[in-house]
Amino acid sequence: MLDFQKIERAAATLEGRFRHTELIHSPYYSARLATPLYFKCENLQRTGSFKIRGAYNFLASQSAEDLRRGVITASAGNHAQGVALSAALLGCTCTVVMPESTPLAKELATVGYGAQVVIHGSSFDEAAEKALALAQKKGLLYVPAFDDPLIMAGQGTVGLEIVHALPDVETVVVPIGGGGLISGIATAVKTLCPTAKVVGVEAKSAACASKARQKGQPVDLHSACSLADGIAMKRIGAQTFPVIEELVDEIVTVQEEDIAMAIVNLMEKGKMVVEGAGAVGLAAMLYTDKSVHQGLTVCVLSGGNLDVQTMSRVVERGMLAEGRYLKLRLEMADVPGSLAALSGLLSQLGANIFQISHDRHNALLPLGEAEVRLELETRGPKHIGEILQQLEEGCYRPDVFS
Amino acid sequence: MLDFQKIERAAATLEGRFRHTELIHSPYYSARLATPLYFKCENLQRTGSFKIRGAYNFLASQSAEDLRRGVITASAGNHAQGVALSAALLGCTCTVVMPESTPLAKELATVGYGAQVVIHGSSFDEAAEKALALAQKKGLLYVPAFDDPLIMAGQGTVGLEIVHALPDVETVVVPIGGGGLISGIATAVKTLCPTAKVVGVEAKSAACASKARQKGQPVDLHSACSLADGIAMKRIGAQTFPVIEELVDEIVTVQEEDIAMAIVNLMEKGKMVVEGAGAVGLAAMLYTDKSVHQGLTVCVLSGGNLDVQTMSRVVERGMLAEGRYLKLRLEMADVPGSLAALSGLLSQLGANIFQISHDRHNALLPLGEAEVRLELETRGPKHIGEILQQLEEGCYRPDVFS
Repeated sequence: MLDFQKIERAAATLEGRFRHTELIHSPYYSARLATPLYFKCENLQRTGSFKIRGAYNFLASQSAEDLRRGVITASAGNHAQGVALSAALLGCTCTVVMPESTPLAKELATVGYGAQVVIHGSSFDEAAEKALALAQKKGLLYVPAFDDPLIMAGQGTVGLEIVHALPDVETVVVPIGGGGLISGIATAVKTLCPTAKVVGVEAKSAACASKARQKGQPVDLHSACSLADGIAMKRIGAQTFPVIEELVDEIVTVQEEDIAMAIVNLMEKGKMVVEGAGAVGLAAMLYTDKSVHQGLTVCVLSGGNLDVQTMSRVVERGMLAEGRYLKLRLEMADVPGSLAALSGLLSQLGANIFQISHDRHNALLPLGEAEVRLELETRGPKHIGEILQQLEEGCYRPDVFS
Repeated sequence: MLDFQKIERAAATLEGRFRHTELIHSPYYSARLATPLYFKCENLQRTGSFKIRGAYNFLASQSAEDLRRGVITASAGNHAQGVALSAALLGCTCTVVMPESTPLAKELATVGYGAQVVIHGSSFDEAAEKALALAQKKGLLYVPAFDDPLIMAGQGTVGLEIVHALPDVETVVVPIGGGGLISGIATAVKTLCPTAKVVGVEAKSAACASKARQKGQPVDLHSACSLADGIAMKRIGAQTFPVIEELVDEIVTVQEEDIAMAIVNLMEKGKMVVEGAGAVGLAAMLYTDKSVHQGLTVCVLSGGNLDVQTMSRVVERGMLAEGRYLKLRLEMADVPGSLAALSGLLSQLGANIFQISHDRHNALLPLGEAEVRLELETRGPKHIGEILQQLEEGCYRPDVFS
C-alpha cells in the first residue's frame, strides 16, 4: 500500500541523484488563463521524464542479491530509459523488451544507458509477455511500470517538490496513464495541503481512469491509441485506482487535436519540448470548457521525449487544428500564366505558400486543366474563409483536404 | 558610453517587470562536455528573447514628451516584439517596419503586443530606411536595435543575473550579432568577476565581429545570411565594437550545419526550443575543436523564437548532418515484387522508412526500370555506410542526395 511515509523515504533515496526539477512560472499562460500558472518541468528530469523516480526507488529498495540477478522490463518509452539508467547507477545488468514499433531514437537512448534491448512483438502487450517469459526463464527481476507502491512512491516525490516550493498551491494538474504519477502526487499533495485540488487528465481515446471511475473498478478498454503514447493505457492499475478514487477530485479527458495543439503551443509560446502525454494538462486548460485551473495552479509537464521525426507531423496537425494551415486542391487552365495569376491572388490575400505541386497527368482531369495542390500558412480560421471565398470567386473550385 | 553603473541602473528599471530567467544546470551536457554547464534561458524571457531588456531600458529612459510622440523601429524579429511590448507597457504608440520576408508568426506576435506593423522592402536595410523616413516625417522616436548605450546596458542585466546566481562562473558563452548583448554581458561579468572568460560566437556566414577584430575596426560584410537570422548582421556596431575589443577574450565562428545540429540537439536532449541565434554557443562547444568551455560554464540561450514552420526543415537538416537521416534515389526493375524485396532488405538493415516515392514515368530511365526515392532514418554514419554497401551489392545503384 502507498502511504505518505513511503514517499518521504523515496525522496531520501532519490536525493542528490536526480533533479528537483524547475517549477517555472509562465507569464504568458498566466495571462491567457487568468490565473497564476507554473509548470513542473519533468521534461527536464534526467532521461526526459519523471519515470526515473519510480524506477530508481523500486530498484534501490531491492536486495543486493536480487539486483545481482539482473533486471528486466518491457516498455516502448520513458519507463525503459528510467529502468536502464537506474540499473546502470546501481550496477546491475538490464534487459528491456521493446515492441517493433518503437522509434529508433528511444531504442538508441535506452541502449545508451547500457541496457540490452530486445525488439519483440507488434504491441506493448506482446513485448510485456516476452519480458515476463524471459524473467522467469533467466531468473531476472521484473520492474513494473506503475502498479506498485514503490514505483508510485517514487513518482510521488514530484508532489513533495511542488508543495515544498509552492506551499500555497491550489490546483495541481496531472496526466493519467496507468495512474502511478497521479496516485503518488495526490498522496503527497493531499497530505500536505488537504484543500488543494488534484485534477487528472487523460486522452479521450485511452480514458481508462474515467471508465474505471464510472464502473467503480478497473476495466479493459477495447483499444488505447493516442498521440499521447506515454499514457495510452488500456487499463488503470489495480493498486493506483483506489488511491485515485479517494484523492483525485476530477478527471478530465482531451481530444487528439487538443493534444497536438498543446504540444505546438508549448513549443511556440512556452519554448519547451513536451511529449503528448506531458501536454494533456495544458490541453485541458486551454481547449476544454472545464474549469480545471482554479487559483494558483501547477501543471505537471511529465515528459519531453517527443521524437523529432514525429515533431514535424505534430506541428502540421496542430497548425491545421488551429486554422493556421490549409491544404487544398484546385483545378486551373493548363496554359502559360495560370500559375502566376493564382500565386498573385494568394499573395494579395496574405497567404504564405509552404508547398505547391502541379500535375497535368491526372487522368481524371478534364482535358486542358491542371491540378494544383497547395499548402498554405494562414492567419486563422477567418482568413481561411476569406481565401476560400476568393478562390471560389476566381473559379478555382478549391477542395480542402488534410 | 556604456559603463557598469548604467547596467545597474538598467537592472533597477527592469526589476519586477521582466524575468530573472532561469539558469538551468544540464546534467546531460555537463557530462558530454566534461564541465559543469548551465543554460541562461533567455528563450524563456517575455517575448521569447533578451531583446525586451534593452528596448524597455531605452524607452523607459526617454522623456514623457518624447514617448508621447510615439516610437518606431525596424526589425524582422525579436527586437520588434521587444519594442512593441515595451511601448505597450509604457503606454505609447508603436510602429514596426518589417521586411516582406518576415514570417507570419512574428508579424502576428508583434501585432499582438499592440504595435502597428508596416511591411516594406525586400531586405532589412530597406525596412530600416523606410522606418527612418517615417520617423522623420511623423516626428517619431526611433529605437535602435543594438548600437546604443541604453540598449547595451539593458542587455547587460543578463550578465548581472548570471554572476549574482553563480559568483564562481569561469566562462560565459554569448552569441554575437550587432554586439549589444555581448558588450553588455562582458561589461557586467568582467566588472564583477575579472578572471572569468567571455567568449563570443557568431555564424561563419555573418562573422562581422571576427572581421572587425581582424581589421581593427567595423567593416561591412558583402552578405550576411544564416539560419541564425537573429545574429545575421553585415556590420558590428560602432559603439559595441570597442567594448568587445577590450573585454571579449575570444570570438569563435560556427558553420550552418553546426547550428542546425545544435537546435535539434537542444530540442531532443535539452527539451528546449531555441532559435538559431540562441544555439550558436552550444554549437561552438559541441562541434568545433576550440576549447570554448573551461571550468564552470554558462551558455546564454539568447532566444527561442524559432518558427514552427521552419522547425521541421531544421530538424531534417540537423538529422542529415548528424548522419541520422539518408535521402537516396535508386533504380529497380519495374516488375511485381521489386518493392517488397527492397523494403525487406531495408527492414533487415534496421533502417526506418520515413518516405518513399516510386516513379516509372521518368523519361531518362531505361525501359523496364522504375525510380524510387527514399528517406530513411538511420543509426548514424556507420549505419549509412552499411546500408549503401548492401544496396550496391543488391545492384540498386543508390545515389545519395540532400
